[in-house]
Amino acid sequence: MAGTDKTQNQVLGPAPLVVLAHPQLGENIGTAARAMANFGLHELRLVAPRDGWPNEKALTASSGAHWIVEGAKVFGDLPAALVDMNYVYATTARPRDMIKEVITPEQAGDDMRVRVARGEKVALLFGRERWGLSNEEVSLADVIVTAPVNPAFASINIAQAVLLMGYEWFKEHAVSLGQQTPELAALDGPGLQTPDTRLATKEELYGFFDHLERELDDAGFFKTEKKRPTMRLNLRNMFVRAELTEQEIRSLRGMVSSLTRTHLRSKGPKQ
Amino acid sequence: MAGTDKTQNQVLGPAPLVVLAHPQLGENIGTAARAMANFGLHELRLVAPRDGWPNEKALTASSGAHWIVEGAKVFGDLPAALVDMNYVYATTARPRDMIKEVITPEQAGDDMRVRVARGEKVALLFGRERWGLSNEEVSLADVIVTAPVNPAFASINIAQAVLLMGYEWFKEHAVSLGQQTPELAALDGPGLQTPDTRLATKEELYGFFDHLERELDDAGFFKTEKKRPTMRLNLRNMFVRAELTEQEIRSLRGMVSSLTRTHLRSKGPKQ
Repeated sequence: MAGTDKTQNQVLGPAPLVVLAHPQLGENIGTAARAMANFGLHELRLVAPRDGWPNEKALTASSGAHWIVEGAKVFGDLPAALVDMNYVYATTARPRDMIKEVITPEQAGDDMRVRVARGEKVALLFGRERWGLSNEEVSLADVIVTAPVNPAFASINIAQAVLLMGYEWFKEHAVSLGQQTPELAALDGPGLQTPDTRLATKEELYGFFDHLERELDDAGFFKTEKKRPTMRLNLRNMFVRAELTEQEIRSLRGMVSSLTRTHLRSKGPKQ
Repeated sequence: MAGTDKTQNQVLGPAPLVVLAHPQLGENIGTAARAMANFGLHELRLVAPRDGWPNEKALTASSGAHWIVEGAKVFGDLPAALVDMNYVYATTARPRDMIKEVITPEQAGDDMRVRVARGEKVALLFGRERWGLSNEEVSLADVIVTAPVNPAFASINIAQAVLLMGYEWFKEHAVSLGQQTPELAALDGPGLQTPDTRLATKEELYGFFDHLERELDDAGFFKTEKKRPTMRLNLRNMFVRAELTEQEIRSLRGMVSSLTRTHLRSKGPKQ
């Protein structure tokens, strides 16, 4: 999935913070920063990174998300990193022996959009690479977020956990932003892309049908009169389904003309 | 998100295949395999991996998803890797100058669950690290999948693209696995109803393309060599979009044969 427009503003407005508790490798901090950038998250907090800070490897691994790595704030312990937050989502893969609500990343996405929209400061909390968050750390969060994963292979890389949460944050957010920013509006539109052309009118479509069927009649394609109506409908259905553009109708007509006309010219004489 | 139960079965039933077109680094193949394992994807196909195969780095980077790396099949070109597929999702970040439906990963997740439940073989297609998929490669797919990302930072690592698609595949599937799958099959959902026939395989579709393009070459339809690639892609995209059945492919081939053969017979002598 390549393709980045460097000219656009990097910061897309208020968003959840990412807090990495006791991260171990600089590379993972960098790839987490990259994943944040992909989905409009821009504030990173680190709790006692094992290999110190700043960390050159984090910068390299961020694939250009330098402003996130360079802007990261370091804290001595987790409570210090969370004091100014209103709501904290703890991501875990293991079930915990504690009474705390567990939601999916999708539910978390809905919830954080509502909270951020009403001005709350929210944080997404991720644990150390080797064994995640301690129960003590989870207890500081308001809710647990667990993705449905293959129970036989549940270990998710920290950058990938950040990616999933970022993806769920941005998924709907992009749509609402899309009403203001033309770039995003262009991005978020599922459905058919029709660059430089428009869907054909039915008149154009039926014109093509007439052309094609006349040639097919000529060519004896409809073997019997009995079969003709069904064969004709089946052909029409195929082309209707393709939701053809006006340009494509012209290509198809050109194709039919070529196939009939030229064979006359190039192969006819051999008969 | 640590935590894995090694005692559980690794293969969770029919799932989309992952096809990596011209992957460059072994590490990325490995991390993609790991992401597959997280979400119950188990079949990996590689098209002409740049650094050869097998690749020790892929095994190391897979963090234990060895069965996926070791079971990967290698193909010389993309069509060969797709011939037995019924439906292909191409993941891209950039909008393409072609007429093809664009859906979100979430919509793709819904769609693939329905297709897999009714026995179709589907593939998720990912491009090379540096610049993704070529237009030619995208043209072989049925639909484009693009995640809403920060337009200022849209480049997603290949393993992370695999992760997002796997996550969307597994998100609801995990829930339905608990209830048995016949309901899902009965649900049938959106998509094409194909009474008395089945969706064409890619082999059948590509066979039709070869036939049609040979005739069009013969007929001088592609006016200049310069225009040929685009005209060819546009034609292919139209037919791919129609999600043709095996029966329809036969009709189309019959149509092409009729248009060329018969004109020779009926009109040739008049020349």
